[in-house]
Amino acid sequence: MEIKDHRDLERLVVEKDFKTLRSELPNLQNADVAHLMEDLSLEHVVIVFRSLPKNRAAEIFSYLSSDMQGHIVDGITDQEVGTIINQLFVDDAADFLEEMPANVVKRVLKSAAPDTRALINQFLQYPPESAGSIMTAEFVDLKKKMTVHQSFSRIRRTAFDKETVYTCYVTDANRYLEGIVTVKRLFLADDDAIIEDIMETNVISAHTTDDQEQVAQLFAKYDLLSLPIVDHENRLVGIVTVDDIVGVIHQEATEDFQKMAAMAPSEKPYLKTSVFTLARHRITWLMILMVSAMITGGVLKKYEMAFIAIPVLVTFIPMLTDTGGNAGSQSSTLVIRGMALNEIDTKDFGKVILKELGVSAIVGISLSFVNFLRLIWMYPGNILMPLSVSMALFATVVLAKTVGGVLPLFAKAINTDPATMAAPVITTIVDAFSLIIYFKIVTLLLF
Amino acid sequence: MEIKDHRDLERLVVEKDFKTLRSELPNLQNADVAHLMEDLSLEHVVIVFRSLPKNRAAEIFSYLSSDMQGHIVDGITDQEVGTIINQLFVDDAADFLEEMPANVVKRVLKSAAPDTRALINQFLQYPPESAGSIMTAEFVDLKKKMTVHQSFSRIRRTAFDKETVYTCYVTDANRYLEGIVTVKRLFLADDDAIIEDIMETNVISAHTTDDQEQVAQLFAKYDLLSLPIVDHENRLVGIVTVDDIVGVIHQEATEDFQKMAAMAPSEKPYLKTSVFTLARHRITWLMILMVSAMITGGVLKKYEMAFIAIPVLVTFIPMLTDTGGNAGSQSSTLVIRGMALNEIDTKDFGKVILKELGVSAIVGISLSFVNFLRLIWMYPGNILMPLSVSMALFATVVLAKTVGGVLPLFAKAINTDPATMAAPVITTIVDAFSLIIYFKIVTLLLF
Repeated sequence: MEIKDHRDLERLVVEKDFKTLRSELPNLQNADVAHLMEDLSLEHVVIVFRSLPKNRAAEIFSYLSSDMQGHIVDGITDQEVGTIINQLFVDDAADFLEEMPANVVKRVLKSAAPDTRALINQFLQYPPESAGSIMTAEFVDLKKKMTVHQSFSRIRRTAFDKETVYTCYVTDANRYLEGIVTVKRLFLADDDAIIEDIMETNVISAHTTDDQEQVAQLFAKYDLLSLPIVDHENRLVGIVTVDDIVGVIHQEATEDFQKMAAMAPSEKPYLKTSVFTLARHRITWLMILMVSAMITGGVLKKYEMAFIAIPVLVTFIPMLTDTGGNAGSQSSTLVIRGMALNEIDTKDFGKVILKELGVSAIVGISLSFVNFLRLIWMYPGNILMPLSVSMALFATVVLAKTVGGVLPLFAKAINTDPATMAAPVITTIVDAFSLIIYFKIVTLLLF
Repeated sequence: MEIKDHRDLERLVVEKDFKTLRSELPNLQNADVAHLMEDLSLEHVVIVFRSLPKNRAAEIFSYLSSDMQGHIVDGITDQEVGTIINQLFVDDAADFLEEMPANVVKRVLKSAAPDTRALINQFLQYPPESAGSIMTAEFVDLKKKMTVHQSFSRIRRTAFDKETVYTCYVTDANRYLEGIVTVKRLFLADDDAIIEDIMETNVISAHTTDDQEQVAQLFAKYDLLSLPIVDHENRLVGIVTVDDIVGVIHQEATEDFQKMAAMAPSEKPYLKTSVFTLARHRITWLMILMVSAMITGGVLKKYEMAFIAIPVLVTFIPMLTDTGGNAGSQSSTLVIRGMALNEIDTKDFGKVILKELGVSAIVGISLSFVNFLRLIWMYPGNILMPLSVSMALFATVVLAKTVGGVLPLFAKAINTDPATMAAPVITTIVDAFSLIIYFKIVTLLLF
């Protein structure tokens, strides 16, 4: 039988049909095996893990969630733990250990080979979300005096435990990076060509402490497959490969989505996050914004006499504040995203203001005009009230778009994350000002 | 002198120092040369383009914006156009031509070699944002009876004009895909091993008409470097490489950011988009939402007597609607993003409702409690008014989070883009209902 879902897998374990299990598991992709294991009942996970092809167990392990990794480590022997940790790429090992409680980390490191342990310990010291924390130490290094033929021999001898063999790094005796050469370049060269003559010396690299977002931007800009990472003395210590960058790009975008909706960022999938944690991530900003909105409410108190005299004025408040919020968040979203993609910088301040003023003029006039027509149709014979509401609407749109475009740039200028200057904050700020403008115009024209 | 920015480049052209230009340009990365060219004055662009190293001109061309590509094509001879188009990878050529006016497309295709022209024409027929539109036709194909040694010879002979050589595709006489073999696997095998014995037959592939977002999800899930693309008869027609996927992931996230802020999506960078286009992308949704908010305002009219009697009730409207909007957009953002990352599906409907009810209970009680304390402190001696405002706030949070969590799932169930069910729409819907609840509670408790 073929394994189609986690129920098939579960059944094989319950029926103790290990023969089929061992013969069918190799037909699945590593990511798919991990995915099926996530849905197994916990008592069967270790049994399946032990049935995995030995040469693939470590890689499948690296695809599992940290909850599942912890469960497996608890259920296997120290010797088995040692095998896994020695086979894992060191960046995956560090990722796994970062999520484990101290006693598990201790047990795992004790079971690891001494050189693996040293390397993992070094990786665990890099700041989270830094280039160092996502790099791998398993790369092919060549010397510049080697021939292409010697290089191929070296690659073939060492390829097995390297994360990528397709870009090779040429280092000197002190591990300084002298150049890179791709396997494609080696293919195109003669067997007796010297590496020094064919290597690329104009190498893009990053520093262990650089932010992973900057590293991802380098990959996007230069279409890289891998990037060398150097330490503070410019020695080559690792490489970042593009498959890890795909994950980083997803993660950074998810974080921005969360921040822009006024939440604390989290890597954990929604369905796997507890209600309590979700609430904790959301409540701080909601509380801050609620208190700010109370202040906006206070503004309204000053104009009580206006809406007691003309109660219909109150009915335009949602339209004004919602339109202001939407107009402002359109602008802030474009500017925040533009900054995340390195397309907009603080020096573009003037250009952004000019664009937003132009856009808000067009948009503001169109919306105000439609609003004006609707009001003179609904309240015939009255011109001043429709006029004052429409003027307030126009001013709100211009204000909202300018504030929405400028505040993210301002945030970056004072080293705050621009993503916090998104819809929720913009809306709250614009609300207060648009209501003041509204009632100022209204009291001026109608009283 | 070294070329550091576009002014250095400009100066070399103005001073007609072509010797330095030709000697310095090779020291720059392709992406950086393209970036500098974007900032040149238009009359100098063609001069710089003609000074580029011949073997890199096409690749630098592929990094340029379509405006700049069009300008260059207008300024060079048909023969030069032919050289560029024949050297471009066919996916880059198709991307370029898609943005050109008809007369330019005609001239370019006329200048291309016949087989290139046929291939480009085929690529131009794939739907935009499909796997076919981002794939490349330049891959290494092997036959299953070849030895590893023969395979290496074939790769070395054909590597020059292939986009990637690191995954090779094993096809039969009818171009059916029989398996894949990576160069790493070839390195690890003996020279006389037969491809058939070492190739991977359990191959992940996609269809030419599949959406690029699905393709990107396959890369993320399986850590792929390239993916074979097959036609409707399951014949191999091209491959997608991971460097193009990095662009797709950025583009898809940007589109979601834009849709979630109530804008028509656009690929063009903000600073390069005209004020008129920006306004056009924003106005439709603003208009729809403004009219909807007017309806919300209409709701308030029914309760005029309440706020004429107790005017302070009006001052709580911004706090209620803003908190409702923020609470709802937190939930909708997490669910929309979860669906984009394939972590949440319509079948998780029940789980999402339960989570949001739980979260909104915790968040709603906390916010209402703080709000209640603040109101009995500000309006001492009055219990019913603080109580009714806090009850309305609690109901608003629960309603907002449930609606925010459920509407994106509902959108997907009826085949609409979940990203449209984001903050702006949620806010408008929740506003109306929260104000009705507020005034219902108020009239019940205070009158």
